[in-house]
Order: sequence, then C-alpha cells, then structure tokens
Amino acid sequence: MQPISFATDPSRYRHWKLELRDDVAVLGMAVDEGAGLVPGYALKLNSYDLGVDIELADAVQRLRFSHPEVHALVVTSLRERMFCAGANIFMLASSSHPFKVNFCKFTNETRLYLEEMSAESGIRALAALNGTASGGGYELALACDEILLIDDGSAAVSLPEVPLLGVLPGTGGLTRLVDKRKVRRDRADFFSTAAEGVKGRRAAAWRLVDEAVPSSQFATRVRERAAALAGASDRPKSGPGVELEPISAAPSAHGMEYRWVRLEIGREKRVATLTVRAPDRGEPESPSALLEAGSRAWAIAAWRELDDALLHLRFNEPEIGVVLLRTEGDAKAVLAVDRTVDRHRSHWLVREILLLQKRVLKRLELTARTFFALVDPGSAFAGSLLELALAADRAYMLAGGDAPATVELSPLNRGALPTSSGLSRLEARFLGEPARLGEVLSHGGPFDAEAACDTGLVTFAPDDIDWEDEVRLAVEERAAMSPDALTGMEANLRFPGPETLETKIFGRLSAWQNWIFTRPNATGEKGTLTLYGKAGQRPELDRRRT
Amino acid sequence: MQPISFATDPSRYRHWKLELRDDVAVLGMAVDEGAGLVPGYALKLNSYDLGVDIELADAVQRLRFSHPEVHALVVTSLRERMFCAGANIFMLASSSHPFKVNFCKFTNETRLYLEEMSAESGIRALAALNGTASGGGYELALACDEILLIDDGSAAVSLPEVPLLGVLPGTGGLTRLVDKRKVRRDRADFFSTAAEGVKGRRAAAWRLVDEAVPSSQFATRVRERAAALAGASDRPKSGPGVELEPISAAPSAHGMEYRWVRLEIGREKRVATLTVRAPDRGEPESPSALLEAGSRAWAIAAWRELDDALLHLRFNEPEIGVVLLRTEGDAKAVLAVDRTVDRHRSHWLVREILLLQKRVLKRLELTARTFFALVDPGSAFAGSLLELALAADRAYMLAGGDAPATVELSPLNRGALPTSSGLSRLEARFLGEPARLGEVLSHGGPFDAEAACDTGLVTFAPDDIDWEDEVRLAVEERAAMSPDALTGMEANLRFPGPETLETKIFGRLSAWQNWIFTRPNATGEKGTLTLYGKAGQRPELDRRRT
Repeated sequence: MQPISFATDPSRYRHWKLELRDDVAVLGMAVDEGAGLVPGYALKLNSYDLGVDIELADAVQRLRFSHPEVHALVVTSLRERMFCAGANIFMLASSSHPFKVNFCKFTNETRLYLEEMSAESGIRALAALNGTASGGGYELALACDEILLIDDGSAAVSLPEVPLLGVLPGTGGLTRLVDKRKVRRDRADFFSTAAEGVKGRRAAAWRLVDEAVPSSQFATRVRERAAALAGASDRPKSGPGVELEPISAAPSAHGMEYRWVRLEIGREKRVATLTVRAPDRGEPESPSALLEAGSRAWAIAAWRELDDALLHLRFNEPEIGVVLLRTEGDAKAVLAVDRTVDRHRSHWLVREILLLQKRVLKRLELTARTFFALVDPGSAFAGSLLELALAADRAYMLAGGDAPATVELSPLNRGALPTSSGLSRLEARFLGEPARLGEVLSHGGPFDAEAACDTGLVTFAPDDIDWEDEVRLAVEERAAMSPDALTGMEANLRFPGPETLETKIFGRLSAWQNWIFTRPNATGEKGTLTLYGKAGQRPELDRRRT
Repeated sequence: MQPISFATDPSRYRHWKLELRDDVAVLGMAVDEGAGLVPGYALKLNSYDLGVDIELADAVQRLRFSHPEVHALVVTSLRERMFCAGANIFMLASSSHPFKVNFCKFTNETRLYLEEMSAESGIRALAALNGTASGGGYELALACDEILLIDDGSAAVSLPEVPLLGVLPGTGGLTRLVDKRKVRRDRADFFSTAAEGVKGRRAAAWRLVDEAVPSSQFATRVRERAAALAGASDRPKSGPGVELEPISAAPSAHGMEYRWVRLEIGREKRVATLTVRAPDRGEPESPSALLEAGSRAWAIAAWRELDDALLHLRFNEPEIGVVLLRTEGDAKAVLAVDRTVDRHRSHWLVREILLLQKRVLKRLELTARTFFALVDPGSAFAGSLLELALAADRAYMLAGGDAPATVELSPLNRGALPTSSGLSRLEARFLGEPARLGEVLSHGGPFDAEAACDTGLVTFAPDDIDWEDEVRLAVEERAAMSPDALTGMEANLRFPGPETLETKIFGRLSAWQNWIFTRPNATGEKGTLTLYGKAGQRPELDRRRT
C-alpha cells in the first residue's frame, strides 16, 4: 500500500475552501465525493475520511502561522442543508482496527488543536451550521467556541452513532456534551440515543447549540458573532506571517530522512530509531529574525519534521513496537534557541512556535509505541529536546567516558511545554517528590549521568561496560511483549495526576470506543458496523451487557 | 448454571481467617485450592477467584458494622513465603468476557471499599507482605494505607500481567502506582514489565512498599505499625456493634423478592423492574434505637438488599439491558429516616449507614445496564431514594392525576451521598447551571411533575395520555440498541466533572483492560491468556501497535 502522506497546502485541498475576509477566516467544507484517500467508498453528504481531516489540520496550522491578521475562524459548509454527516461509515467499516483507532486519534487531535487555538492563540472559532450536523459533524462543531444552528425546520444536530451504528461518537462528542457544554447528563443520554437528533429551540434550550437562528437572519448573525469573537483577539492587526514551506522529507526503504530528523526503521526487530539534530549556531535571536527565517528556523522546522515522523510511524509503520529517541549535536545551540523563544514568548509568532512544540510532544505521548530515550555522548538532550527524554517511557543514560553525556534544563522546561494533563513533564515526573522538583529546577548547568539518575531525570545510568547489553535486552524484551497490553499500560502510566477534557477523551472515551470496535457486535460478520447500509440484513447481537 | 450468591459470613469462609486482637483485626488469607467457585481450576499459591473476593468484601463490611472496637486492619497471608499470587489465570482464561469484566469490577469495588474504610470509617489498613505479592496480590496491598514487605532475599512485589500474560493488572494497580503512591512513571514502566518484580530495599526506595523489614523483625514491626494506625482512629473503644443478619431473599424464576426490594426479570424483553419500598412508620430515631434494631433497620436492610439485587443482575442476569427503577410507599417515612441519619451523622453506626448507602448508589452507577427511573403516583422518590432517580440515566415522571406524583429533597441530597467523582448527584446534574442548583436546594417541600421537570430533577414529565406509550417506546428502543455501545456511552455520560482515583480506575484502566480482553492477542486461540501455562505452546501475536 502507498504510504499515507500528511503533506498538503491550500492549493491542493480537495475538500475545503479557505477564504479570508479581513480578520475572519472562513473554512468551508465541500467534500469531494470521489476523492477518498483510498478507493471503495464515496464521501457523500460531506462525510469525511482521513484525507479530509489532514486538510483541516493543515488549514488550522497555516492560519496560525501564516495569517496573524486572522482573529476568528468560521467553520461552515458550502453545501445546502448539510453541514457535515460525520466520519464516513463505509470507510470505517472497511478499515482495519489499527487504522480505525489511529484515524479517530488524529481527528481527535485536530479537534483539540481547534480548542487550543482558541484558548492560547487568540483565534476563536464559530461553527456556522447551515444544515444538519450529525455524528463527527456535530463533534467538529462541539470543538468550536460557539455553535449557531440554522432554524429552518429541518436542520438538526445529532449523535446517531449509538442507535444507528452500535459504536460511540468517536471524536470527543460525549465528553464535550457533559464536560465542556455541560449538557445535563439525562438530556445527553436522550440526545445520544435519538438518531434523528434535536432541532431549533430545543437544541438551544438544552445547550446543544448556542443559538437557533431563522434562515433569513443566519448569514447576518454568523457575521455578527464572528466579528464579536474576532474582537477579543490579541493577535496583530496585520502580517506578515510565516509561510509553512513543504517539509523536506526523503522516504527510503529504511525510513525517512528529514533536514533535522532521521527515522530509521528496523522492521525485523520491530524497533525504530528517531533522531533529532540540534540546531547549528546562528539561529534567529529575535522575533523579526524568526519572521525572516520563516519555517526554515530550527524551532519550527525540526518540530514539524518530528510531527511528520510520528504520524508516519503511526499510520505507515504499524508493526514498530519500540522507538529509540536520540538527539545529536550541540546542546548549547538548543539552549540558545530556547532562550530566544522564552524571552519573546509574548510575540505572536514565538507563541505559535511554543504551541507547535507543545503539540508535537503531546502527539508523541499519545502515540501507542514504547519510547526509550538513549542519552549518550554526543547527544543534545537539553531544554526543549530534554522534553523528549521526559516524555519517554524510560531514559537510559551512559555514565562516564572521556566526553561524558550530560542533560541540561532551559527555561522551557518550567511549564512552557505542558502535557495533556496541564502539568509540566517535570511536575508530572516528580508528583511524589515536590522537594526533588525544586532541587532539579534550581540546579544550574548540566547534569552528568550520576546526577541525572540520582535526581530522577533519567531511569538508569549504566556505564560503558553494561550499556550495550542493558539497552539491547530492554529493547528486545519490550519488543517481544503483547502490543495490546503495552498500549494499555502506557496509556495508564503516561498520564498521572489531574485529568482534563483531553486526557478524558483519550483515556476514557477512546478506550471504550476501541473496545467497542473490537467487539463482534460491531465488527463481526453480523455486527452493526459491518451490516450498516446493507439492505435487508439485520445485525445479530450478543445481548449480554458487559 | 447455579446463580452466584453473594451471601456469606465468617463461619462459612473457606479462604480467609478473621482474627480480632484488641483494636486490630487481622485478615489472614489461606485460599483453599479445591474450593473454587466453579470447577476447572485450582486456586494455587493463594490465587483468587470471585468466591475469595466475596468473602473479603463480606469481612470488610462486617468489620465496619459489627466491630466498632476495631481501629485498624492487617491484611496478611497464612501461608509461608507467599502473600498472594493474584487472580487465578486459569479461572480468567476459562471465563466469558462478561464474567471477566464483572469479576474485575467487583474486585475493584472491594479494593476501593478498603480505601473508603480508611478515609471515612477510621479503620486504616496495613498490608503485611510476609511473602511475594504478585499481580492482584500486590494490587490488594496497594489498596491498603501502608505496605510492609518482608526482606528475606526472595519476597518480591510484582505486576507480571503485561510481560507474562499480555493483559493489564486489572484491579487498579497501574493507577495506584502513579496516582496514589506516586511512583515515578519511568520506574512504574520498568516495574510493570519486570515479571520477577522488585525486592527489598529497591522496592522501598521506589515507594512500591513503605518498608522492607528483615524477617527477624517482621512480626514486631507489623504489630508496631498496626498499633500506630489504630491509634489514629476515631471509632469507639468498645461495642456493641450491629450483627449483619442474612438478607431475606426469595429467588424465583421471575426475579428476587426481598423484604424491601423486589426485582422482577422480564427476560423476553430484556427489561427488569427494580422496586424499593419506603420504610413503614416507626423506624429508629436515635443511634441507640438503631443499634437495637440492628440490620433490620430499613436504613441498613433496604440498602443491603438493593446491593444484592444489583450484584444478582450483574452476574446472573447478563441479558437484561434496561432496569426500571421504581419506589413505592410513604415518602414521608423516607424523609423521617433521612432526618435521623442526618442528625446523627457523627455517630459511628450512622456514619456506616450513610457510607453503605453511598456505596450502593455508586454500585448502581457502575453497573453496565441502562437505568430509567419511573416516578408515578404512589412512588416514594424522596431524599435517599430520590438519589436513585438522580443516579438513573433518565427519569420519567407522570404529570397530573388525582394524587399526583411528587419528589422531595432531604438533607441527604446535599452532599452526604457523593458520586465517584466526589460531587453530589445534584452538583453533577447541574454542572452547567449552578444557579439552578441553588434554586433546587432552597425549595422547601415536594415538587410536582411540572416543577421537577422545569428545574431539571427529572428528564420528561408526560401526562397520563402519553405516559404509557412514551415510556414503553423509550424502553423498547433502548433494549434494542447495541449493548456494547450503550455500556460505552453510559460510562462516558455518567461521570461528568472532576476525575478521581476511582473514576480513573473504572473509566481509563478498566476500559483498556476490557479492550485487551477482547483482542485475539489475549483471548484468541493463540492468545497469551489462552496459552498461559500450556507447555510448549507459544502465543502468536498480531504485532500491529494500536
């Protein structure tokens, strides 16, 4: 199979139209039925597959970087009477379990990025439902700050997954109903089992939407609300922004070679090595220099490449069980970039850079592979790159030698790159030892292996006599274990401490959805998903409640 | 198959010995290999099945009610060199998926009851590991306040589920490691994949146990720590307590008839009706009268019966999809009992009564069936019984008539019976409308259907023309939906708001475990669990990470 590529740009969009109207961007959905990512299904009624969502994610990312003058986003449909019918069911029914799970994960991330954009970037989003929004379509609306529903006697919002398909709304819908929009749970129960959904005034009274607007006033009201949302933005009045140039990636049989990132795939042992290179000296030191360097600045380029490599792993290399995280190059150069970023955090572009790095690190922690960081001489686990080691399931650090390995903190390790739980990686690491956290934060300069291990920044610090065997054995053992048990274990250990909408979606909701996806009641020969749309065939269900 | 019974008492225990030493109770595990709940496996090495856990749950409940003079609990083993090997794998491998899930749920509840006993009842618990504690054995220890591990060169704590069995520790182990004991996540990762576990000093240094104690000092140290834990109790110095008499239950082909509770099973429609009767007048009005009435007091008896009915539903009636919750009798009598309970909350027995009611209501919300409350004339949804309607997925209330139905609050609806999230049911219900919450709480006297519906205490209030059809249709539609999708949906909608250790265990950890249990990698013909202990046969795994 052709590997899935995540590279796109507005000139290549098949399913969305991005229009800029002064300080408001309008993203109009007009899914091209025949342009599914793989053959075998038609994307009718603005239903979507991964390809549609890749464009959406790209558009949101570009708005943030390339259009500082955009202060609000309207998400709407370019079709009559149909906003979006959700994820395409025939696509889902014909997909493998790993693909289904990774598809849902990616779409969930895209929805969360919309919410992060609103909370952190000063671009609030309005869902203008000019027609029915069902399933994933309504879930997309739920990820926006405000939802306007046209009140034309027929447009409804609905979550028909449970009653029609025997699965869950898979993109955060249930969680956002009760936790974000605080819909009363008994009403949420009724709504989530009513295939036909809820219209007009009741939808507004139940807080499923913010307003139901008569057809004649809809366009005006959308403009009014978009203007109001835009008015609250702290983004600059005008550009220039940063054009996101295509990522330089050279795929090979053994992996991917980017400018700053190298992914080496060892299929036989099911182990990959993911190496991030530190910047060279001479990276931009001011916002204006960053604007000039654009997407070639290391602080943008290396992280976009890392993001792409993670998505490549998720979708195109499903059998890789263990990923060894490495860094190489000049740690001082990482620290210098971090200092620039920290010093200018309030500048809109620098803020976007930090948020990009934050999202990529979260993407890593949400990737269902084991990550072991290997810290050895010549590595550059400092500051933002140290977060990679802190995000890993374990870190091994080689002790001793002539030019011993070190790790070092930068200001960015102090909460600038929070995890999904809202804690910094250091806070999450030292939940049980707050004093230790203080000790680590007050330490100036590099830690050698012994100090890093003693304070708890790394897991083990073997010397060069033990290093090779210890790492090799750990990797071999890990790669031999049940992939499913590891996924479940990692999903439970990686998110200690407080829960957020985000961790709830990936922990609770997705885990249940994955369970349902594997059940014969959904995906067996006579399952609800398998038989959806097949005339005359009724699902046969094992009626035991579990 | 013979229905599973949850009734037992110390004279009938096969697997535990309960010994009272002044203010410390010692619960010694000595599992009878040949006394498994069903034939087909031997409970070697103090491994357990549901029968063993039913006794443990019973013992803990009895300590609380019958032995107010007990101020601390020691959980230990009566075997040499083996504390407990965890859940019996051959039992798990031969069980159906619904049974596995319900078994794990029950054992999770028992562990949480130990923690509630510590936090709320003044009985703290010490795990005295006089030998190896692995898997569920270590998880039982994790549910105690303190863990002492004998340091004899061989005793270890371990979670071998992932590396040996390809499943998760299913009784909260992963969550308690990082969230309760705050073990660093990279160490938790290593520990949870090291089949041999961790011993002695390292176990203590990593906070897996509180102390590793040399064999020669173990017994003394256990006594010291138990005495210290007992010293912090606020329980009375001496009895009498309340003997928990056998529950009066008459099983029939169509359900269970208890003294205050009636469970009617409609297998054809997969619908059950669960009715709780209000007390008669003349219930005890003081702690001393409650002590005298003992377990026959409505405030104890009705709730024990309801608990038993829920467990009966879970284990013996797997195909019942919808449970109609009804009450009948004199609402004023419920309010009178509630007032007595509220007035004397600080008395140890009254505190236990409240905690019992709290646990039963939580058990209901953790039961994977749809609950619809039906509020009609003659019902008694007041105070503690109103919590049943608030716990339900929906409540239907019949409007109008000659003696119209009402619902009414008591002081117990104001936080005395919190949900698993820590919020009261009313707080969770009105998350999005705090003003509405204030309105409801300040309302004196009964609400009729219109008022209850307007304020949001019930979901729908049809009049007698619509009532029958509306309820019948809702029940029929619900019973026809995919049982798995409903389980997932309810697990997501029932717990809005904050997360706790408890909701994390049932939401995140259990959902992942259930997923793993259904995967061919665990339970397929060549799965890890299927082939465990079968010499010469190696699991064949689908290596795709998901």
